[in-house]
Amino acid sequence: MLSKNQIKFIRSLEQKKHRKETGLFVAEGGKTVCDLLGSGIRCEYIAATKEWLAGNRGVKAPRIIETSEEELKSISFLRAPQGVIGIFGQRDAAVDTSVVQQQLCLALDDVQDPGNLGTIIRIADWFGIEHIFCSQGTADVYNPKTVQATMGAIGRVNVHYVNLPQLLESTIGKAPVYGTFLDGENIYGKTLAKNGIIVMGNEGNGIGKECAAHIGERLLIPSYPAERPTSESLNVSTATAIICAEFRRR
Amino acid sequence: MLSKNQIKFIRSLEQKKHRKETGLFVAEGGKTVCDLLGSGIRCEYIAATKEWLAGNRGVKAPRIIETSEEELKSISFLRAPQGVIGIFGQRDAAVDTSVVQQQLCLALDDVQDPGNLGTIIRIADWFGIEHIFCSQGTADVYNPKTVQATMGAIGRVNVHYVNLPQLLESTIGKAPVYGTFLDGENIYGKTLAKNGIIVMGNEGNGIGKECAAHIGERLLIPSYPAERPTSESLNVSTATAIICAEFRRR
Repeated sequence: MLSKNQIKFIRSLEQKKHRKETGLFVAEGGKTVCDLLGSGIRCEYIAATKEWLAGNRGVKAPRIIETSEEELKSISFLRAPQGVIGIFGQRDAAVDTSVVQQQLCLALDDVQDPGNLGTIIRIADWFGIEHIFCSQGTADVYNPKTVQATMGAIGRVNVHYVNLPQLLESTIGKAPVYGTFLDGENIYGKTLAKNGIIVMGNEGNGIGKECAAHIGERLLIPSYPAERPTSESLNVSTATAIICAEFRRR
Repeated sequence: MLSKNQIKFIRSLEQKKHRKETGLFVAEGGKTVCDLLGSGIRCEYIAATKEWLAGNRGVKAPRIIETSEEELKSISFLRAPQGVIGIFGQRDAAVDTSVVQQQLCLALDDVQDPGNLGTIIRIADWFGIEHIFCSQGTADVYNPKTVQATMGAIGRVNVHYVNLPQLLESTIGKAPVYGTFLDGENIYGKTLAKNGIIVMGNEGNGIGKECAAHIGERLLIPSYPAERPTSESLNVSTATAIICAEFRRR
């Protein structure tokens, strides 16, 4: 059983303000919770139904609270709760930004949809990208919808909120800065490095002016066939997937 | 102003049962509504705010009903209504399935999330794929969330609900049948044709046994670097994007 105070507290973590104050966040579902428990991220406790615990006897958490379906429903951010919820500590992910000179990193300029952010984190994980630099206007990585969409990848990818134009400016001349634009150059004809930053833009407006000014390599994912009328653009997480796959294929 | 009956009727179209009975569906937002109006899909009427109409004077619809923000909010399926909503007729998209011998087509085996289906339709449009064949268990193409996620592409891509295992079986020997599997062969080492079917599977379970039995070419999107622990899989729309991009790059 969870106490009334615990229930109130967990529900408060839906809001960014409370996540920031407490340094905690909520993860749901067996896959995500178990991945996080194995990731080195600090866990406060998990709350799970009898049925879930019976099917996951090996689970190791600092504290396990047994809860009912009904109680879980009252704290879950999902329509259909998945048997387990965990309270975890946010990472102190300080990083020397010169990492972009050694590795390929992603940067997000005001990506606003939490689901898109989560999907992008999952993509980064698949393609071995360890660091994502986000503008301050980007969705919060600890939003429950983001955490859910990462399907556990949030434990393996580091997300940093930075002054993005400044980071890009300081990278010029040291590592390539790529960005996707609808009037960019066909990615399949470009040289792609093993280090640097790939900038992806906002869902409606693409990459903002301040960031665009520091982008040396303008990439385009060509539609097919070239002349046919088609959608105006691809969704930002879709585009990220295609770009990352192409960098890693080379 | 919309009548009470119209409001009730529009709201009823959130349910598949009512969409099926009436052969109608709802689209929202300027981009989607305008793309549909220009696509040849039959429009019943649009309802839009004064402000939206002032900014879109050129819009041509069989009937335009001016509505208030408040009224629009009461019929919208979105949290933040976007000024316009349209009622459209479902397409009678009968097709000779031998089209898979001439063109590259997609097939979806029980893709359940309406948002994923919509994103996949948008991807198909970008890559010039005109036909998507869905198993009967796949989400409804006219679900408001699907329509929304297509961003207008729904007017340019034909979606057919079929007996999918049967279609795949009848395609063997006439055109290649591809599918993605976590134990498939690296897509970058495979020969990829300009025709045939690419099967994508359910979010949780992948491609079902019945369909898998008829898939000749088993593809895998390799993670990077190969040995590193990573996410179990990619989201189905993410994987579709990478696969379609690779077929069209060749």
